[in-house]
Amino acid sequence: MSVELLENERLDELHRNGYFIIQNPRKFCFGMDAVLLSGFVHVKPQETVLDLGTGTGIIPILLEAKTPGSHFTGLEIQPESADMARRSVRYNKLEDKINIETGDIKDASRRFGASSFHVITTNPPYMTDQHGLTNPNEAKAIARHEILCNLEDVIRESARLLKPQGRFYMVHRPFRIAEIMVLMHQYGIEPKRMQLVYPFVNKEPNMVLLEGLRGGNPRITVEKPLIVYKEPGVYTDEIYDIYGY
Amino acid sequence: MSVELLENERLDELHRNGYFIIQNPRKFCFGMDAVLLSGFVHVKPQETVLDLGTGTGIIPILLEAKTPGSHFTGLEIQPESADMARRSVRYNKLEDKINIETGDIKDASRRFGASSFHVITTNPPYMTDQHGLTNPNEAKAIARHEILCNLEDVIRESARLLKPQGRFYMVHRPFRIAEIMVLMHQYGIEPKRMQLVYPFVNKEPNMVLLEGLRGGNPRITVEKPLIVYKEPGVYTDEIYDIYGY
Repeated sequence: MSVELLENERLDELHRNGYFIIQNPRKFCFGMDAVLLSGFVHVKPQETVLDLGTGTGIIPILLEAKTPGSHFTGLEIQPESADMARRSVRYNKLEDKINIETGDIKDASRRFGASSFHVITTNPPYMTDQHGLTNPNEAKAIARHEILCNLEDVIRESARLLKPQGRFYMVHRPFRIAEIMVLMHQYGIEPKRMQLVYPFVNKEPNMVLLEGLRGGNPRITVEKPLIVYKEPGVYTDEIYDIYGY
Repeated sequence: MSVELLENERLDELHRNGYFIIQNPRKFCFGMDAVLLSGFVHVKPQETVLDLGTGTGIIPILLEAKTPGSHFTGLEIQPESADMARRSVRYNKLEDKINIETGDIKDASRRFGASSFHVITTNPPYMTDQHGLTNPNEAKAIARHEILCNLEDVIRESARLLKPQGRFYMVHRPFRIAEIMVLMHQYGIEPKRMQLVYPFVNKEPNMVLLEGLRGGNPRITVEKPLIVYKEPGVYTDEIYDIYGY
């Protein structure tokens, strides 16, 4: 099928169901964090999923391929990214399963209504620090830094949007684990599952994967470490499995 | 030097400074958790340390050997354990450096006064669950289950006892990480450093080591994984280092 690619855009293979994604390497390409999140998330049959800050739609597209969920929505504030996501959905013929909306996370519960999703996923901006940003309007800066929304916005909106006993999944940086747990608890999404991602077995973790349960009781399962490289340049088997190579 | 050993007690070598500890294997022996905590704690010269729920005094004795701290206090509610701890202190000729007091963690800030220690360490009871306890008065049950004090008591008293910018160190079970972080934040001891202890590289962690800073800002460093066994029955080099073999 034909594909509409704008200047500097390219079509990347996802190694799942023959799906592709449109990306612009001059703007922002999805990273390993989105892929690892898609491997960590559980979606059951008949469940609906909302991805907050979906960017070019990588998470809903991967989750549609990997899980039996009934419908996936992606919310993205940057019109250009949302447009790329919509074209990728069309290219993969997923219009019946995935809907991309352009809008602000801070308004998400007003837009979709309270208690409207079984599952929320998010790969939000990680950095609080806005120093040294030459252009805070750049797509990359908005995706990485808390310019248009912060951690509390994401968790507060998620708590409103989730059905009771709905599940929240997030990938973030380990240096914010304490803040994340405090905010999740404060908004009634109890942390239930955590996995730390270590680049090498003898290095500090650089990502954390979290699952929360709206209305859950405090008791968390910390999973075995997810180690990315067995030697420099060579992924562990687990990472190859998650990528689907 | 002579040692007063009561029935069923034995004298165990600590592989540090020639120190020994008196233990009664029918009551409670220190575990790897206390040893790993002693390797995780930082104590600087001139600093004073309080160990809450010191049992037979393993943590103050190891910290006296490993750190340049000026004075160590152990608080223990069980008179028999406190007595063993005092005899171990005497046997190692540490009466000038270590003081063992018999008393309740819940009264600790009244006993010692607010803002009275630079460092607090604790290896508190892990289990909330009291089902199946045949005898909740047993030394082992009191050391392992939240019978005489709970997590909130330990953290609340620590927050009162620590000087501003004082440091809190705890070993606990990973399934309570979220509760721990919420309580630490609530009482003004911000989690600043965490290490997960994995028995094997491909297993779930069974311990978590935490450092908090009274009055700190939210930003935590998660350290490289601490892996206990490289193969069944064979410790990793790191564990041998911490044990001092």
